[in-house]
Amino acid sequence: MELSNNLIERTCKVFGYLDTLEKKDMEFVSSMDLAKAIGATAYTVRKDISLLDITGYTRKGYGVRALKEELGKKLCLNKKRKACIVGLGRLGTALLDYEKFQEDGFKIVAGFDSSINKLERIRTHIDVYPVSLIKEIIDNKKIELGIITVPAEYAQDVADDLIKAGVTGILNFSHIKINLPRHIINVNLDFTNALRCIAAQLTD
Amino acid sequence: MELSNNLIERTCKVFGYLDTLEKKDMEFVSSMDLAKAIGATAYTVRKDISLLDITGYTRKGYGVRALKEELGKKLCLNKKRKACIVGLGRLGTALLDYEKFQEDGFKIVAGFDSSINKLERIRTHIDVYPVSLIKEIIDNKKIELGIITVPAEYAQDVADDLIKAGVTGILNFSHIKINLPRHIINVNLDFTNALRCIAAQLTD
Repeated sequence: MELSNNLIERTCKVFGYLDTLEKKDMEFVSSMDLAKAIGATAYTVRKDISLLDITGYTRKGYGVRALKEELGKKLCLNKKRKACIVGLGRLGTALLDYEKFQEDGFKIVAGFDSSINKLERIRTHIDVYPVSLIKEIIDNKKIELGIITVPAEYAQDVADDLIKAGVTGILNFSHIKINLPRHIINVNLDFTNALRCIAAQLTD
Repeated sequence: MELSNNLIERTCKVFGYLDTLEKKDMEFVSSMDLAKAIGATAYTVRKDISLLDITGYTRKGYGVRALKEELGKKLCLNKKRKACIVGLGRLGTALLDYEKFQEDGFKIVAGFDSSINKLERIRTHIDVYPVSLIKEIIDNKKIELGIITVPAEYAQDVADDLIKAGVTGILNFSHIKINLPRHIINVNLDFTNALRCIAAQLTD
């Protein structure tokens, strides 16, 4: 099934919102509510869901738990994925213990940094290693996802190392776009660009 | 001039890329290179730029500095914007000293937290205050942007406080969608959703 990036992005947001609703013990949700929560139209939400071959829209709306389960299956979100973080500066260490990842099916199982000094001082319950062990640890722990939080000038090298080690998905927090082979799935989260998008829409 | 969100997002990315090129002393850039850097087509890039009434595409491409300057003017990115951060946990403190913001025309001028204990222990060169002073400080310092890094359950309250205090743009790092008046510009950066988008595209 070949799905567009936009559909995947929207549907992942729907999944996240359903998770919130489930925790609040909500039983049903309308396509309109889903649409509002993710910033799309109700038509788009219904179309996305039907493109995924999911039915089940009743007069009361979608069943929250059933829809979440179905979406999770279709997008393989029910599988627990192991991830590592490279670059244990402030952002990296903040993410290392970010509990929300854990709740949502992602398990950070390793952190890497080039500074032995930093590795010795760090306080976390996650195992941390020097970057020279990236390949070995990723192999051993069967890590699928790499989160890059090193300074921009090292981001490409780190990405190359992660891919050589077998990681297939990369979340890049540096503001540099990294060049990756086509089969590697990649999302950039650029904080500055997010602020810029806001600033560009301010009226004065 | 009414610009679509997609155009603004793409153009902000182009601006960021031009900034990188400028620092590398590149003089010209083709629409194809810009397109690759931001993940769009060359046609879209040229169309966006011409929709902004910017000309200047030559055989060598766009002049890097000239295009950056023009885009900056059209999107008001040349104005220095003041921002504050609410929630000084690990992520908040990581962002407090995030130098890239500074370089890019954003100045973090205040941090807020509800824990006096945390405020006393924090080590940063930015002024930090208890949340009870949000209105006063935002007024005094003329802060336009608010960055929310509190736990999800407090995000809505913090957003309400920021808006009452006069902030017009919000960057929300909590995974909760917050309800905002229409005139408030808002971007959500949800780390978990970013990982989910990656996971949904992995082949097994």
